Amino acid sequence: MSTDVFEKVIELAKRRGFFWPSYEIYGGVAGFYDLGPLGVRLKNKIIELWREYFIQKHQELVVELETPIIGPAKVYEASGHVEHFTDPITECLRCGRKYRADHLIEEKLGINVEGLTPYELTELIRSKGIRCPSCNGELSEVKLFSLLFKTTIGPYHTNIGYLRPETAQGIFVSFKRVHECMRKKLPLGIAQVGKVARNEISPRQAMIRLREFTIAEMEFFFDPEDPNQGGYLEEYLARVENEKLRIRRHGVNDIIEAKVRELIEEKIVTTPWLAYWMAVSNQFVKELGVSESNIVFVEKGPTERAHYSIQTFDQMVKVSRFGWVEVSGHSYRTDYDLARHMKYSGQDLTVFKQYEEVKVVRKKEVVIDIPWLGRTFKSKAKTILEELKRVDPIQIEKEVKEKGYVTIAGEKIPADRIRIVEKEVKETGRRFIPHVVEPSFGVERLIYVTLEYAYTEKNGRTILRLPRKLAPYEAAVFPLTRDERLVKLARKLWMQLISKGLYVIYDDDGSIGRRYARVDEIGVPVAVTVDYQSLEDNTVTLRDRDTWEQIRVPIDKVYDAIISFIYQGLSLHKLQEKINC
Amino acid sequence: MSTDVFEKVIELAKRRGFFWPSYEIYGGVAGFYDLGPLGVRLKNKIIELWREYFIQKHQELVVELETPIIGPAKVYEASGHVEHFTDPITECLRCGRKYRADHLIEEKLGINVEGLTPYELTELIRSKGIRCPSCNGELSEVKLFSLLFKTTIGPYHTNIGYLRPETAQGIFVSFKRVHECMRKKLPLGIAQVGKVARNEISPRQAMIRLREFTIAEMEFFFDPEDPNQGGYLEEYLARVENEKLRIRRHGVNDIIEAKVRELIEEKIVTTPWLAYWMAVSNQFVKELGVSESNIVFVEKGPTERAHYSIQTFDQMVKVSRFGWVEVSGHSYRTDYDLARHMKYSGQDLTVFKQYEEVKVVRKKEVVIDIPWLGRTFKSKAKTILEELKRVDPIQIEKEVKEKGYVTIAGEKIPADRIRIVEKEVKETGRRFIPHVVEPSFGVERLIYVTLEYAYTEKNGRTILRLPRKLAPYEAAVFPLTRDERLVKLARKLWMQLISKGLYVIYDDDGSIGRRYARVDEIGVPVAVTVDYQSLEDNTVTLRDRDTWEQIRVPIDKVYDAIISFIYQGLSLHKLQEKINC
Repeated sequence: MSTDVFEKVIELAKRRGFFWPSYEIYGGVAGFYDLGPLGVRLKNKIIELWREYFIQKHQELVVELETPIIGPAKVYEASGHVEHFTDPITECLRCGRKYRADHLIEEKLGINVEGLTPYELTELIRSKGIRCPSCNGELSEVKLFSLLFKTTIGPYHTNIGYLRPETAQGIFVSFKRVHECMRKKLPLGIAQVGKVARNEISPRQAMIRLREFTIAEMEFFFDPEDPNQGGYLEEYLARVENEKLRIRRHGVNDIIEAKVRELIEEKIVTTPWLAYWMAVSNQFVKELGVSESNIVFVEKGPTERAHYSIQTFDQMVKVSRFGWVEVSGHSYRTDYDLARHMKYSGQDLTVFKQYEEVKVVRKKEVVIDIPWLGRTFKSKAKTILEELKRVDPIQIEKEVKEKGYVTIAGEKIPADRIRIVEKEVKETGRRFIPHVVEPSFGVERLIYVTLEYAYTEKNGRTILRLPRKLAPYEAAVFPLTRDERLVKLARKLWMQLISKGLYVIYDDDGSIGRRYARVDEIGVPVAVTVDYQSLEDNTVTLRDRDTWEQIRVPIDKVYDAIISFIYQGLSLHKLQEKINC
Repeated sequence: MSTDVFEKVIELAKRRGFFWPSYEIYGGVAGFYDLGPLGVRLKNKIIELWREYFIQKHQELVVELETPIIGPAKVYEASGHVEHFTDPITECLRCGRKYRADHLIEEKLGINVEGLTPYELTELIRSKGIRCPSCNGELSEVKLFSLLFKTTIGPYHTNIGYLRPETAQGIFVSFKRVHECMRKKLPLGIAQVGKVARNEISPRQAMIRLREFTIAEMEFFFDPEDPNQGGYLEEYLARVENEKLRIRRHGVNDIIEAKVRELIEEKIVTTPWLAYWMAVSNQFVKELGVSESNIVFVEKGPTERAHYSIQTFDQMVKVSRFGWVEVSGHSYRTDYDLARHMKYSGQDLTVFKQYEEVKVVRKKEVVIDIPWLGRTFKSKAKTILEELKRVDPIQIEKEVKEKGYVTIAGEKIPADRIRIVEKEVKETGRRFIPHVVEPSFGVERLIYVTLEYAYTEKNGRTILRLPRKLAPYEAAVFPLTRDERLVKLARKLWMQLISKGLYVIYDDDGSIGRRYARVDEIGVPVAVTVDYQSLEDNTVTLRDRDTWEQIRVPIDKVYDAIISFIYQGLSLHKLQEKINC
């Protein structure tokens, strides 16, 4: 792909209404983009396709949730984002301009500084004499800048809130409630699509790096000791077993090609559900029009991963201007997030899993002289009993043996008032914190990628070969000329198609060739033309955006023909055969 | 409706997964709600229905846009929100608790204080001896509290940003770009659905008053001198001419019932497009299941309207706990917003309207002695010429007549160097700022209203009679018993329905009666049961949620039957006839 495709797509997007920089009349604000009329429809169709792949087809395992964008500070302290979600920043001591320190050093020195501390970055700036690119002033020491947008909730200034940098935390915080609604089943995927905000220091790269964007992600909860619980893993793996993934492991240059089961068996991917969802993501991105060879899953190194992940693969797609761009991240978040929220909230977020058969295990138990306890400690006896239940009997046994007494709730219980016995206990199941894998897509990047892969030129004209089912308008209807009889018939057909729920362009302005060109450019899959023959035999022409071939179809079969053409992927030739049947 | 329906809906919503308070494990944060698995699907279906009514059916006039939630301060200074979007607040001088002053006074005194200034509210608190409801401490003077959530964009602390309190400003700011993409046509509706944030002082009322919620609104731009431009107004009014609206005018107690044209002709609604969209909104809310007699449009008084509106009607729906609740607002925003953004951005946001025929008008024009100007003012001559073009010739003529000279760009031009002539000028059109009417819906309120109107009880059981097309799950499939043969057939049917894109519940847990009850409770319109007869003749039963009637249908016609039942609104009886044909 030539390097200027990016510019062509950007120009088309702005002129025809896919997207453009926000707040243009105020000079723009970096990192914000509007979606225009065509962009909104393309976005919604991409999200519907994502729902189809990740939710609808998995509806016995996966549900959708919607949680707020604004969250209280505690949530993002628990998640680790307040501490870890930062970028290094340096400020010019003369002109006051601020720069992302790692990017500045990488640009100036052409080296990779991933994982370096602010101190090390400062040393590099000092030792290599890097100065302000704008005024050549001296640069400050490097500090960490929080990427969380901060605000205040309600009238008390101490109630700090943050805009979510990912939709995931809302899912973790409400996991318990959703799990209960779903009758406590595992595995359980909880998906969410919605806006997130990341206060980037100086975003560039148009739609590729935004301060506000849409994430479509899923947290998939499972039992790490039994990922195949219920037989679902095997059942679903069977559906993708022929899917080949291109993988680049960390520290390796070569790309390998492997099937999902190979990735699992050779432990390239550390947990099977992570591999499964990578395979689904591969299918999904191909359906956006990206060819297999332009997708690769790149394993991130320890310093490149987010703080919550023990293995991450980025799904990269090749684009003209920026090379390989991440469209989704696939992380094994383990029980990190739920464990942190348990700790910070004090709530029990474990799940209970019933054993198939009751297990009998021998367990130590503490027996205390209750009448003595009541006589001695009076009203405090109850507190001591409760505290006693929370302490491990083995610990008490050890303390009594060593010291001749044990201290409970600040009170001494002598050895002769307490006894450790061993009993047979029936266990019906076990409690544990589910583990999580997460496939997470950046929707605006998918929009851009879809447009770039659809962008083609033919005879000097632009054709947007969008996958038919993603096209913002399903069809266009044209009268061949402005002859009143043709206009009347064309408008009648157009209104019929609208009444059946389609989005259809009507256009009678300019030559028919110019009108075809206008709809080719925005990816309308099929154009219907009412001509003079239509007045005689009630047939119209259907024209394929990509091949420019045409067939004639009875006017009362146009709706069905459009639906078959778009959703069954028929060629015009096949469609003609089907209609003639 | 009995007063406890609210509580029943809230309990059902929480238990089955429609919605619940956010951040429950952290004790909750007032004004934030999660949508659970059923709630997300209901919300998306309500939004799709809104799109159908406001966009899809009006696609030649209306398009959708998506703009950011975070906006630079300038946008909300221009819009007037920084100045006007406030609530009065008072603080307890002893315990520090803060209260919404007008609500506190209204609760304590039982009077309406709408429109009073902070000074007047303070006087009321002082004179009536109102004290802190919590600690009886003295209350501070009343101040205005901004309802905008504030943040910082990027690393410079002076770059203030706000979270949008309405999606409308993004539409106004990008109006020019969208108008150009749409080939500069008017009228033009630009719709947007998305999250907004309002930092309420102390929100209560569950889903009814939230700090973060979803708005679905449209700004409809038209020529105030020619609202019927293109004939669209008449064409579309004809579609709703039988729609009757219930209206309560400001200052009048009685509710009148009137057709749209009457509202326009009798000038009850001041601009026709406002009335048109109110009629569409009436249809839309009825389709959510609200009966006609429980909807009323209430005209707001001058102190109750937002700062940008010269006429506002609130569409109110009656609900159990709170009485009449606003589900949408209908405002005539005139050219207020575009004019403000023109002023603050310095950009031309007018549109040009071509006359059908070129008009010849006589216009005064200024002729100046150019050679003299150049000699006298040298390099400043250009500035003077430019300035001259901006001043009204009539003004110059007047000044020259009165004073014998005119001052342009600080320089005196004597009368003998300047001349006013009258010329015939051809005008091809005129420039103006479009006017705007806005129908604006609160989506979470629609969700609540839809659920409350669907909530019914029958024989002591809950049935959620959701409009069929809004039901989160289209159908349920049950094997009559856990007999392996029935389970196998039922699961096969269930997977077929899923592969065709439906959301379908499969359940084989518990008695068939209990399973029917479980799906009735969440509004599944139709339950399909595989029984022993199915094994013999390949038919299954279809059961109507609302009537509990059943019919038998061949298994290969189940999909079509479900679609007809849901989208064509057939009764089971009619459906049976259709299938037997």
